[in-house]
Amino acid sequence: MTVAAESEIAATIEGMARRARAAALSSARLDAAARRRALEAMADAIDTHREQILAANALDLSTAERNRVSGPMLDRLRLDERAVKKLAAAVREVAGQDDHLGTIEEELVRPNGLRVGRMRIPLGVVAMIYESRPNVTADAAALCLKAGNAVILRGGSEAQHSNRAIADALREGLTGSQVPQDAVQLVPTTDRKAIDVLLEQEQFIDLVIPRGGESLIRAVTAKSRIPVLQHYKGVCHVFLDEDAPVQRSIDIVVNSKVQRPGVCNALETLLVHRDAAARVLPPVADKLVQAGVELRGSPDVVALLGGVPVKMATEEDWYAEYLDLTLAVRIVDDLEAALDHIARYGSNHTEAIVTDDTERAERFVSAVQSSTVLVNASTRFADGGELGLGAEIGISTSKLHAYGPMGARELTTRKFVVFGEGQVRK
Amino acid sequence: MTVAAESEIAATIEGMARRARAAALSSARLDAAARRRALEAMADAIDTHREQILAANALDLSTAERNRVSGPMLDRLRLDERAVKKLAAAVREVAGQDDHLGTIEEELVRPNGLRVGRMRIPLGVVAMIYESRPNVTADAAALCLKAGNAVILRGGSEAQHSNRAIADALREGLTGSQVPQDAVQLVPTTDRKAIDVLLEQEQFIDLVIPRGGESLIRAVTAKSRIPVLQHYKGVCHVFLDEDAPVQRSIDIVVNSKVQRPGVCNALETLLVHRDAAARVLPPVADKLVQAGVELRGSPDVVALLGGVPVKMATEEDWYAEYLDLTLAVRIVDDLEAALDHIARYGSNHTEAIVTDDTERAERFVSAVQSSTVLVNASTRFADGGELGLGAEIGISTSKLHAYGPMGARELTTRKFVVFGEGQVRK
Repeated sequence: MTVAAESEIAATIEGMARRARAAALSSARLDAAARRRALEAMADAIDTHREQILAANALDLSTAERNRVSGPMLDRLRLDERAVKKLAAAVREVAGQDDHLGTIEEELVRPNGLRVGRMRIPLGVVAMIYESRPNVTADAAALCLKAGNAVILRGGSEAQHSNRAIADALREGLTGSQVPQDAVQLVPTTDRKAIDVLLEQEQFIDLVIPRGGESLIRAVTAKSRIPVLQHYKGVCHVFLDEDAPVQRSIDIVVNSKVQRPGVCNALETLLVHRDAAARVLPPVADKLVQAGVELRGSPDVVALLGGVPVKMATEEDWYAEYLDLTLAVRIVDDLEAALDHIARYGSNHTEAIVTDDTERAERFVSAVQSSTVLVNASTRFADGGELGLGAEIGISTSKLHAYGPMGARELTTRKFVVFGEGQVRK
Repeated sequence: MTVAAESEIAATIEGMARRARAAALSSARLDAAARRRALEAMADAIDTHREQILAANALDLSTAERNRVSGPMLDRLRLDERAVKKLAAAVREVAGQDDHLGTIEEELVRPNGLRVGRMRIPLGVVAMIYESRPNVTADAAALCLKAGNAVILRGGSEAQHSNRAIADALREGLTGSQVPQDAVQLVPTTDRKAIDVLLEQEQFIDLVIPRGGESLIRAVTAKSRIPVLQHYKGVCHVFLDEDAPVQRSIDIVVNSKVQRPGVCNALETLLVHRDAAARVLPPVADKLVQAGVELRGSPDVVALLGGVPVKMATEEDWYAEYLDLTLAVRIVDDLEAALDHIARYGSNHTEAIVTDDTERAERFVSAVQSSTVLVNASTRFADGGELGLGAEIGISTSKLHAYGPMGARELTTRKFVVFGEGQVRK
């Protein structure tokens, strides 16, 4: 690339960041009703531009097919009429959520009479850097604007026409609203230089959210001068405790693994209490194999599951995020050994225990430091919608700011507000 | 430095980070009473080691004097018997604060019967990188341990003997407690290479808090792979509104500027409503000048304050954090112009309005995006202790995770906890 082209990209990105900051400042001053109306207009605009969005998507799909992109990736890229309707519906749902901005929380009165509270305000400008799924364009914009922020979107090159069509629709929707159009901007180039420049705009951008593979997230984190919300990977565990009932174990393990194996809250390693193994593991393994799951077990698992095909697991299997119909299985001596395995190999995403023992359930819930810990429920519930946040913008596995699924409220912060009658400090 | 020395430093720091992670994991499993007892033992150990701490401090002071360190810096470095007693008292006060760990907040029941809540847990390992004040060693350790974390302390070279003596006392205090000694570790070298290595330990360290000058904070932010809580500077404003009463204006402006000019919540720019200027500014300026404050005013301020010495302000004055008895003064057309000035030149730290008009007070509180916004009170109240957080570990002016003064609770995060009876995702 020529120096001229580089400086042109830098100027474009800086201009976008500056306009986003200005848009965020005016959005922050609007009331909840104005923000809701703007989101509804965005949803309507997706509906009225359905044909353009589908045409753009067809263009992306044919390029991807020419480039022999893999089947699962094509699936994530593909939009049909129903999918575009769902896009609009998701934006409408976010529009209808509670609005948290401006509320004062944790009010107290100090001994000197000062009234102190914490008022929820937008973060400001959020940059989303994401890979192939075009629905992120609409979801992220809706959540960011709901929380009074502006968003800069940088999608993957595979979905560039789809993203552009969706972003154009969203911006057109904003025309008649009080939210400035520049509250939603899509980076107009897929040149990677644009990301580098984006990550230097700490003066204008408050938060970067990368969504995609681990290498993308690591690269963004290493380069960014702006705080980054990270979600590296989901090596999720289910632990079948000593007393785990067979049918419940089957239901939870099969659902966690099979219902949608390609996503981050799918099960990757099954841990079984030694005293439950002979009773519980064979029927669970049967159902898994029937569902097409390939098992990789510790030596005692292989020995126990005589009739069922199971490969020998290696050390790497305990770290693996398969995102596929493969499952690592290990027998552990007890609850404490399960906790040690999770602390060592886990990714701070999601872990579940199947047990009827309240004390051991509580021990598991307290001791596991992952962002979502479940008792007697599928790991697939680790999701903003399922946990009651409405839509989610991502799942944080780093502990700063937010941990676990993040909704609109996680895109806000709180400032201290203090009301006095002339108090000075002694 | 030789390569051997470099790799030795790297090995030392990595070992510390690894031990801190292990210490954090065991601390997280303790109950509130065990943590409180450990903090009380730390406070007692400061008392019993008072002589050693004072002797170490005398050594640092004599080195600083030999190096012709400036007066204010010597003051920040100096400990006397009373100061060491206050150190212990501060640790004891943190010990007595409410403990937030393990409490489940925001419980709700989903339509499918899942009970969802958010449990407060420690962040894990916190690295503090700070400059000359040795009291940070004890304060930071107390707050981090109160919140169930481990801390790695890296103080400035000027205070190295004081920091070592305090850290040794704290660790000795932990000997008889359930909190591992390695929950408090002081980096044993003042070599800057140690900071570089520290900032690469994202596997073991969850948060970095730099406290010191802007250049330190910028350098840490640029290099760190670990999330950083930033506090760049405090360019704090007071706005005297149209109807600001004279005596209250004097009280708040003088206290904000003069009570402790060297700290971040001291007033740096005074804004005055044009219609109030002739009435309010001369008496306020008189008192400021009597208190030894040098004024730098916009041309209309200079014209108005005929009898009082006031220099002409330049554009740089509006950005300045003087940390000294200097004050920039500007007349603005109205409240909106004051908001624009703050948005342009402010640092997201602390701003105050003096007014009796409820509507304009609310407008100011809503529109100013700074981390602390006050009505009719001194900017000096922007402080964790004054706002009811107990002690503070720093003041964040970046909006992620925490914004404004941070206490022990801001050193925690929340995980999702979910209780089911076998629910799977449809």
